[in-house]
Amino acid sequence: MSYFEFMGKQIYYETYGQGKPIVLLNGIMMSTLSWKPFIEVFSKENQLILLDFLDQGRSDKMDTAYTQDIQIEVLKALLDELKLNKANLVGISYGGEVALEFAVKYEKYVDRMVLFNTTAKTSPWLKDIGVAWNRSVNDPLDYYCTTIPVIYSPKFYNDKSEWMDNRKTLLTEKVFNQKPFMEAMIRLTESADNHDVTEKLPNIKIPTLIVSCENDYITPMPEQRKLHELISTSELVVLPGTGHASMYEKPLLFSSLVLGFVNCQSVEFIV
Amino acid sequence: MSYFEFMGKQIYYETYGQGKPIVLLNGIMMSTLSWKPFIEVFSKENQLILLDFLDQGRSDKMDTAYTQDIQIEVLKALLDELKLNKANLVGISYGGEVALEFAVKYEKYVDRMVLFNTTAKTSPWLKDIGVAWNRSVNDPLDYYCTTIPVIYSPKFYNDKSEWMDNRKTLLTEKVFNQKPFMEAMIRLTESADNHDVTEKLPNIKIPTLIVSCENDYITPMPEQRKLHELISTSELVVLPGTGHASMYEKPLLFSSLVLGFVNCQSVEFIV
Amino acid sequence: MSYFEFMGKQIYYETYGQGKPIVLLNGIMMSTLSWKPFIEVFSKENQLILLDFLDQGRSDKMDTAYTQDIQIEVLKALLDELKLNKANLVGISYGGEVALEFAVKYEKYVDRMVLFNTTAKTSPWLKDIGVAWNRSVNDPLDYYCTTIPVIYSPKFYNDKSEWMDNRKTLLTEKVFNQKPFMEAMIRLTESADNHDVTEKLPNIKIPTLIVSCENDYITPMPEQRKLHELISTSELVVLPGTGHASMYEKPLLFSSLVLGFVNCQSVEFIV
Amino acid sequence: MSYFEFMGKQIYYETYGQGKPIVLLNGIMMSTLSWKPFIEVFSKENQLILLDFLDQGRSDKMDTAYTQDIQIEVLKALLDELKLNKANLVGISYGGEVALEFAVKYEKYVDRMVLFNTTAKTSPWLKDIGVAWNRSVNDPLDYYCTTIPVIYSPKFYNDKSEWMDNRKTLLTEKVFNQKPFMEAMIRLTESADNHDVTEKLPNIKIPTLIVSCENDYITPMPEQRKLHELISTSELVVLPGTGHASMYEKPLLFSSLVLGFVNCQSVEFIV
Repeated sequence: MSYFEFMGKQIYYETYGQGKPIVLLNGIMMSTLSWKPFIEVFSKENQLILLDFLDQGRSDKMDTAYTQDIQIEVLKALLDELKLNKANLVGISYGGEVALEFAVKYEKYVDRMVLFNTTAKTSPWLKDIGVAWNRSVNDPLDYYCTTIPVIYSPKFYNDKSEWMDNRKTLLTEKVFNQKPFMEAMIRLTESADNHDVTEKLPNIKIPTLIVSCENDYITPMPEQRKLHELISTSELVVLPGTGHASMYEKPLLFSSLVLGFVNCQSVEFIV
Repeated sequence: MSYFEFMGKQIYYETYGQGKPIVLLNGIMMSTLSWKPFIEVFSKENQLILLDFLDQGRSDKMDTAYTQDIQIEVLKALLDELKLNKANLVGISYGGEVALEFAVKYEKYVDRMVLFNTTAKTSPWLKDIGVAWNRSVNDPLDYYCTTIPVIYSPKFYNDKSEWMDNRKTLLTEKVFNQKPFMEAMIRLTESADNHDVTEKLPNIKIPTLIVSCENDYITPMPEQRKLHELISTSELVVLPGTGHASMYEKPLLFSSLVLGFVNCQSVEFIV
Repeated sequence: MSYFEFMGKQIYYETYGQGKPIVLLNGIMMSTLSWKPFIEVFSKENQLILLDFLDQGRSDKMDTAYTQDIQIEVLKALLDELKLNKANLVGISYGGEVALEFAVKYEKYVDRMVLFNTTAKTSPWLKDIGVAWNRSVNDPLDYYCTTIPVIYSPKFYNDKSEWMDNRKTLLTEKVFNQKPFMEAMIRLTESADNHDVTEKLPNIKIPTLIVSCENDYITPMPEQRKLHELISTSELVVLPGTGHASMYEKPLLFSSLVLGFVNCQSVEFIV
Repeated sequence: MSYFEFMGKQIYYETYGQGKPIVLLNGIMMSTLSWKPFIEVFSKENQLILLDFLDQGRSDKMDTAYTQDIQIEVLKALLDELKLNKANLVGISYGGEVALEFAVKYEKYVDRMVLFNTTAKTSPWLKDIGVAWNRSVNDPLDYYCTTIPVIYSPKFYNDKSEWMDNRKTLLTEKVFNQKPFMEAMIRLTESADNHDVTEKLPNIKIPTLIVSCENDYITPMPEQRKLHELISTSELVVLPGTGHASMYEKPLLFSSLVLGFVNCQSVEFIV
């Protein structure tokens, strides 16, 4: 539970355990709090590092528009703060995009990467979906129904009705009716509008695990196939029956994939 | 260009050509006008029948809530009006759902069916997506960004930017700002809320072609796999790289699949 | 039931009906006889043309090795014999390969193509599978078990046990124990060893329907995705739960897809 | 490098390292030797146990026919020999089948399972493929071409030509020409003919990771989807572009998936 200062803003982070460091990078609507159920499992053999990006959780809010570039620098500042020369980056969605951009700019600081539900570029299609999100911010139920069903697989959303109902109550009554949160969501969403590392991916030589989810309708499977084609040091895994919020739908798989890939030695394979 | 009366409402329909009759059943936002590019090809060897459901196109608007049951009766009244004892039903999305419900109730009137982008049931997931649509009706751009990107495959939406830009201008400036149209959209969307023929599908013995689109994020592929499992007389085809608006994304394939399946004799296959 | 002479060899063919001509091109183990259950449905609105390639059915056997090039010329000679300036080519497996090679060399004679279970190239992987076939020719049951299970989807092979048992008896007792047939199979298999039109596919401008089968383990789905990427005028369709012998597993779909695509007018789609 | 006696036969096994025990169960053609490149990575944090089944590697050959049941007892005897009350079972193909059968009979001895390229049942389709294998044993090149290409993805087989050429030389000149090896292969193959645990899978309550490979043409993806449906405590992962010999095609992924799943704590997820 610590803060550091970045360009006059307070940045919130948490660290747990010891071992190869793993930084979990939040999706857009998430915060360090979202990872609570994962803290124990991730910090058992590793140093786990959680981070609220600017405009997320307990980090300071911004007051003007910005791009994801600033979040890259937040992440770099965090590594500096922790005196880490090398870390494993695990990102989901927005967090995966920041991981990719960070890898392009600061490759030598990255040991391995695990990218869930990540895209190389915010396409016009995805950008317009973001417009729909941002034009719904004044009506909590509209915002919920615009953003939430589509980030779960239909199967999970339909089967886990109690969990979803709790989320609906929590989000519409305690979160999406908070003006500062919604204004931050607008800025965060727009900060990804120009995300595009397509051209630079062939330069990345970091061992990377790309996890693609069959029922991800925000960053659909063709996006991760593209990542896999462009990053020569990547491996690709597909999770059937899983949506965009993969960490909530498949927590054990999420954890196993991350810990397995981060902690596994390279296999010396003499062909 | 004709009308008939149904329960005091005017129902609009068009017929073209001669041969085995094909009724094209509209998706929710469509009307007889949407099929203009297809009229020539579909009426060459067949009688083509287009229909505006209640609250669509040139048919009368409703003033109260209703369910899809009423559209089934509209369709039945149309067949009666045309004195057809048997017709081929081709439906997409909302139209596919009406086709399924019609087949359950009036099986003997159906020769063959072709169902594009169709689901057996409006799940809680799909219902909440409908809520997002209906809560965005007062802002044409919000409605556009909430409903349109998601019904195209990202590939089509990103590649066909001129076509999409034209659609955006047309829809936001001439359609989604028309209050009667938007009120009809609310009613049409809600009329599908209780759609559920799951239990009755095993009774259907109509030769049926089910077309599933790989990038359909409104009625995703698992829905059509379920239809195929439950309708013993069905065939399943998948269109890679195609979204929910399959007829616009793949007009030649759409037409070929319909005409091929409707007009093809049964193959006497002695095993 | 006619013959024509080609380079001193008798070539057997059959024609039925009238209309746009469709030439059905055999898979490697097939002959004109294999299409018997399809004759009526294909000749209803079209001129259906069946052909035994050299070393197939009632066409003459060869006595030396050759490449698929010669089958292209057989096909060209057939079109000349029938005085056809333009025909629709429908090929499955070996027949699809000949269709592709013909299209590369004689594009103007081809109206449209439908390619089932076809590959652009005989890869080392496929070539070695051919070696396994050819080294099993002296033992009918070995040949059966090496070639037949793998060309059906496991589902079809397991479910249609009566049909498969009949095939096993027929093939092991009447066909695979015939030395001339087996020698022809060796030559036919080897004639495809150098098949590779990959580089030339971007030149093809023929409307082409590519049909890919989910459980095809001889010419697996990635092969047809490649064809679709390289032929800009192609459409791609996937048949779930179907193996390499798609015409036997899905006769109605096979026929519908061919007739629909061949007979469908182009859709004038003004974007 | 140790032996123990089982029913008068010598059984060979190896153990390395300390920690949660992992037993790697061989595919049909494999032996303890096959795992050499994996020993270091698997024994770093775990006790790694390798085993030659009867008729494999340095374990004794059998002289009569048997079923996989006997291999289950070999595995049980190994756990007894090592005084293990609980172990993690990792199986590929034949080894996965033995793991499944062991789990059905000796559930309490199994901690977690990871199953690669595994099927619940030897179907008629798979049995006939086995017949093709067994009828090719007298011709090393026939046996190679019948068994080897089909267990690799076409992509790997075509791209890794040097590795495949080395395998071809090694296998045809040093292995497939050894009569005792080939006789053992016949017995091993036939020992799986009656494998069928379908009915018993719903009883299994062991956390199980099922790994399905997109280009596995021996135990194709529908088999693993079935396993996943029937084992309620299972997770399913798909490896795109990978064949039946997944451990050779994707050694890092293979290792990461196993170590991640075996060593990961359960995630306490309060919904």
